[in-house]
Amino acid sequence: MARAKATSFEIIIVGNEILSGSIKDTNSGWLAARLGELGVYLRRITTVRDDVSEISSAIREAIRRGAKWVITSGGLGPTFDDITLEAVAKAVNRKLTVNQEAVNMLRARYERLAAQGVIRDAHLTPVRLKMATMPRGAIALRNNEGSAPGCLVRYRGATIVSLPGVPRELMDIFENEVRPRIEKEASRIHRLGVWIKVKGVPESVYAPEIEKTYKALRKKVYVKSHPMGIQDGLSLTRIELISEDASRERAERNLKEAEEQIIQILKEKGAVEISVERR
Amino acid sequence: MARAKATSFEIIIVGNEILSGSIKDTNSGWLAARLGELGVYLRRITTVRDDVSEISSAIREAIRRGAKWVITSGGLGPTFDDITLEAVAKAVNRKLTVNQEAVNMLRARYERLAAQGVIRDAHLTPVRLKMATMPRGAIALRNNEGSAPGCLVRYRGATIVSLPGVPRELMDIFENEVRPRIEKEASRIHRLGVWIKVKGVPESVYAPEIEKTYKALRKKVYVKSHPMGIQDGLSLTRIELISEDASRERAERNLKEAEEQIIQILKEKGAVEISVERR
Repeated sequence: MARAKATSFEIIIVGNEILSGSIKDTNSGWLAARLGELGVYLRRITTVRDDVSEISSAIREAIRRGAKWVITSGGLGPTFDDITLEAVAKAVNRKLTVNQEAVNMLRARYERLAAQGVIRDAHLTPVRLKMATMPRGAIALRNNEGSAPGCLVRYRGATIVSLPGVPRELMDIFENEVRPRIEKEASRIHRLGVWIKVKGVPESVYAPEIEKTYKALRKKVYVKSHPMGIQDGLSLTRIELISEDASRERAERNLKEAEEQIIQILKEKGAVEISVERR
Repeated sequence: MARAKATSFEIIIVGNEILSGSIKDTNSGWLAARLGELGVYLRRITTVRDDVSEISSAIREAIRRGAKWVITSGGLGPTFDDITLEAVAKAVNRKLTVNQEAVNMLRARYERLAAQGVIRDAHLTPVRLKMATMPRGAIALRNNEGSAPGCLVRYRGATIVSLPGVPRELMDIFENEVRPRIEKEASRIHRLGVWIKVKGVPESVYAPEIEKTYKALRKKVYVKSHPMGIQDGLSLTRIELISEDASRERAERNLKEAEEQIIQILKEKGAVEISVERR
């Protein structure tokens, strides 16, 4: 697959509660699906403890592996154990400082909440100001669903985006503040898929041939087969082909080539029924 | 927290489909909850692509970080893109070889399926034998729910366990083959928790004091506060304390000390209502 053409992303999920199994992480799956739609390349998802050196190591490792975008989730709140931005600052070797844009966002929010009577006092206490304390040079990202702004830091050609762990806040900031930047800045690939459903050739019979085809196509098309059991005494299998390329034409051409070769093999091996479904 | 006392674990989830967002990973959350019950320390969860060098790097990194157990999920099936055991072999620098125990497990399974008429032929074809091909010296782990046996490899004081990605197969092998070995071999900690619910002191008022307590307790008790909104014009918050120690007595003593200090602070700060719930 033409992975090198698509911008490489990594996701870092922060949270002791996830590692202790007491809450389920849904943010990584949601973000992975969005990045898939955008046609960028998600290389790894890493879940780490609420610990400055764990988080900053994970960020550095991702950048060292070549990630151009690192998206973190969790640890942006007001309490002392919300330490993600401290870890980002450490990873990029910058000081933490009060971010004026973030202060303005927090002030507007607390004034609105005070006017609605939800809180008594809109004053920016040190604990509230903590949410505006970001690595120097950061861009604050507006949060329409909660207090803590997101944070975007540029560092040696990489972009580190930090989002809150509360799913509805993460989704809001991603959709309004992050997605448009990815669309503008990242190299994206076209991703096309087909499912070939085949009856009457067991996986064990065609697998060696299909492996040869896959290698002959120099891995430009990803091939995965999923056995689906037995029907009327015959094996049923679904073969999934995924073609990815920066050029839509090339993605289509490679997919067509793989599809034709695989159907040819299946016919030679005595397939009783073959159906093709575009995905 | 007395993390150093509990054996360190890492989980590695293998799967392009998870990184492309087309399927949701539920195995890591399930395993995290089981490891939490067992009282071991889960340091990281890493999700990587179906790629030999990605998987073997992730395994090596985990061992380098000090993991004594690495549990992988996915990539044990019969097709050429199931390459987890090849990656384990690479990570521990051993050759792949046909594992006789695994062959026996597969033979018994296919003979049973053929006798039931589910498959026509119990013959161990090369594709089926692939599932018995494991790093030299591996222990095959019985799979009561599917074909591919799990695999356990010992390497320089660490244990690498590879489980299938199909949740019901992963659960079966974990419960019957892995859990008993962890119970016997791993150092486990006692984990005790309380929730303190407090009304009338906003998080921003008590947070600095509680942070001092946390530090004074030398981080033996993990403290996390969760704002729960406003009721009758008063802040509601839940403060979660988690105490972990190899000795149950010490875990209890530390927890009691933290609880008393925090309740004292909350009273001084004017709490209207405090309730304590053991977890």
